[in-house]
Amino acid sequence: MRPNEIAKALIRRRSVTPDDAGCQALMAEHLTALGFDCEHLRFGEVDNLWAVRGDSGPLFCFAGHTDVVPTGPEQNWTHPPFDPVEADGWLWGRGAADMKGGLAAMISAVETFLAEHPEPGLRLAFLITSDEEGPAQDGTRKVMETLGERGVTIDYCVVGEPSSRDRVGDVVRHGRRGSLSGQVTVTGVQGHVAYPQNADNPIPRLAAALTELSQRQWDEGDEDFPPTSFQISNFNAGTGANNVIPATAEAWFNFRYSPRQTPEGLQAVVEEVFGRHAPRHEFFWRDSGRPFITRGGRLLEAVRNAVRETAGIEPEFSTSGGTSDGRFIAPTGTELVELGPTNASIHAVDERIGLDELELLSRCYEDILKALQD
Amino acid sequence: MRPNEIAKALIRRRSVTPDDAGCQALMAEHLTALGFDCEHLRFGEVDNLWAVRGDSGPLFCFAGHTDVVPTGPEQNWTHPPFDPVEADGWLWGRGAADMKGGLAAMISAVETFLAEHPEPGLRLAFLITSDEEGPAQDGTRKVMETLGERGVTIDYCVVGEPSSRDRVGDVVRHGRRGSLSGQVTVTGVQGHVAYPQNADNPIPRLAAALTELSQRQWDEGDEDFPPTSFQISNFNAGTGANNVIPATAEAWFNFRYSPRQTPEGLQAVVEEVFGRHAPRHEFFWRDSGRPFITRGGRLLEAVRNAVRETAGIEPEFSTSGGTSDGRFIAPTGTELVELGPTNASIHAVDERIGLDELELLSRCYEDILKALQD
Ligand SMILES: [Zn+2]
Ligand SMILES: [Zn+2]
Repeated sequence: MRPNEIAKALIRRRSVTPDDAGCQALMAEHLTALGFDCEHLRFGEVDNLWAVRGDSGPLFCFAGHTDVVPTGPEQNWTHPPFDPVEADGWLWGRGAADMKGGLAAMISAVETFLAEHPEPGLRLAFLITSDEEGPAQDGTRKVMETLGERGVTIDYCVVGEPSSRDRVGDVVRHGRRGSLSGQVTVTGVQGHVAYPQNADNPIPRLAAALTELSQRQWDEGDEDFPPTSFQISNFNAGTGANNVIPATAEAWFNFRYSPRQTPEGLQAVVEEVFGRHAPRHEFFWRDSGRPFITRGGRLLEAVRNAVRETAGIEPEFSTSGGTSDGRFIAPTGTELVELGPTNASIHAVDERIGLDELELLSRCYEDILKALQD
Repeated sequence: MRPNEIAKALIRRRSVTPDDAGCQALMAEHLTALGFDCEHLRFGEVDNLWAVRGDSGPLFCFAGHTDVVPTGPEQNWTHPPFDPVEADGWLWGRGAADMKGGLAAMISAVETFLAEHPEPGLRLAFLITSDEEGPAQDGTRKVMETLGERGVTIDYCVVGEPSSRDRVGDVVRHGRRGSLSGQVTVTGVQGHVAYPQNADNPIPRLAAALTELSQRQWDEGDEDFPPTSFQISNFNAGTGANNVIPATAEAWFNFRYSPRQTPEGLQAVVEEVFGRHAPRHEFFWRDSGRPFITRGGRLLEAVRNAVRETAGIEPEFSTSGGTSDGRFIAPTGTELVELGPTNASIHAVDERIGLDELELLSRCYEDILKALQD
């Protein structure tokens, strides 16, 4: 089946995170027909699908998610977000680019590939969750734990996230930065602004610590990673009165870091800086994704050639962007890339994917399979 | 009449700011009986009383306010806050110390003084407002404007604010620091924490500017004034999401400054610092009281002697504390002090004044009048 038909059937299902809304059942129907064993793994409120075909050769896995972000007011959309329309060369609908289009291209690619190679030199798998856009706790993470307990290891993985900038394949992600979040509360002593000697203002303490951390050069980055970045997202202090020194001040911050750093090392620097400027403090840390990178290997070569041949361009391998579920798969030693459609419309109104992108992506995935089975 | 009786009658009137609740009418009744001409000056929602007696000699003015701060839950009080009780040597009630006790001591002192000196060598006045605890815009400030238009100048002024620490007269205020408040909004460019290169985070900009201002030594103070202080009361930035760099960051801050500084000079330094760290900013300034000081002069001498003789202690002249309505009177060239009861219980539950304090304060005020009429 052509990928646009599969994509439309998926878009019609209102799978706002974490609701799968029957998308995985639809995928399982296609995959069962293609000889996959389909297993529905539900953790908490999250549906996950693990589908596998064949029992010899390296294990190649397509990974992705069926959930989508909310639409906002539907009247702002040119076409209803869950009523997919092909118009002006695009397929319109929530999830078209992130990432039901990618899922459809995967199924279509596997179908074509297996028609030519009914006994391929690869085991094939799909790892699909419905909680990538949500907290991502009961999705890919839990499936990988289950696979780990069974001793299953994935050799190659293509995640269908919308990696491309202007044309399919112009950007391929071969790694991601790590993400470490912190919340800090600095405690002082409340008082009146006219009597600062009887108070201990936590605001300049927190401001001084954050200033030092913001001005610090953490590393220089390298050819694959930009320099580690420290960003403050929230700073809240004060009673709302202009004559009161508040008792506490709070900030939230986030690191995006390369494999040159570790969460433990970053935390130690932050603690040391706060120890000097604001000794009375409390931290809450959240380690929301270790960095990973696939350097060289057969998968990267197959992806490069596939993009060259199908799209006629040279892909740029990049580690930019946010976190993805690749963070749960790559650390097991998998060669992993993210390759999907252009991302200009994702998470926005009028999300869409070019009909030519869909076809091209499907051929590209097919070429990767062909290259790796040899 | 003894001051405790006058104080109790005033406390019974629930004059929560800006409501005078009949206090000034009660005072005017006493003062009229003592030969004062009483003028009720109402500005906006605020009642003010200007009472004056005599037409030759230097003008001596008692200044104060009838309004009180709210009580909070009345069940937390040992005695009902508007039902004054004498117990354990104290007179209990909201406003007992700040500053209905002081007002009562003034009236009682003037009564005794005039009984002995029916034709004193001083003109006497009372300048009473009901908005000292509130915004203080339609109170003493407006009365002083009116007096200015009439060409009335006050030579000596005693403000009855609770200046004392442990015993009546141990601390007398002979000046106040200035107060300058600022609000600043720093503008950046909103974005995602994973793409800081596409955003401009206003939080580290604001933090860096405030850190520099907090660490700056503005001056060393002098024998009368502590060093100028810069305090931040509020810092607010962030969307509440931990992955969003916000578009703006806001802070409120306040200077308490000595006559060595001017508001214009302080503002210029702040603007220069923000110009370097956060060029896209907007300020709102509020000049809420210029510094003033009475150095030497007949009033200070009279106060020192009166405290010595009535209380048997040596007063400490101080400029500490917040602002007071003295800021509106002193700049006209008036010799001005603030002398009142101990301030441990003001603005708190179980506000009270020692019955001995009331008597002593009344004698002290009387002594000051005697000294100045000579
Ligand atoms: Zn996605
Ligand atoms: Zn007061």
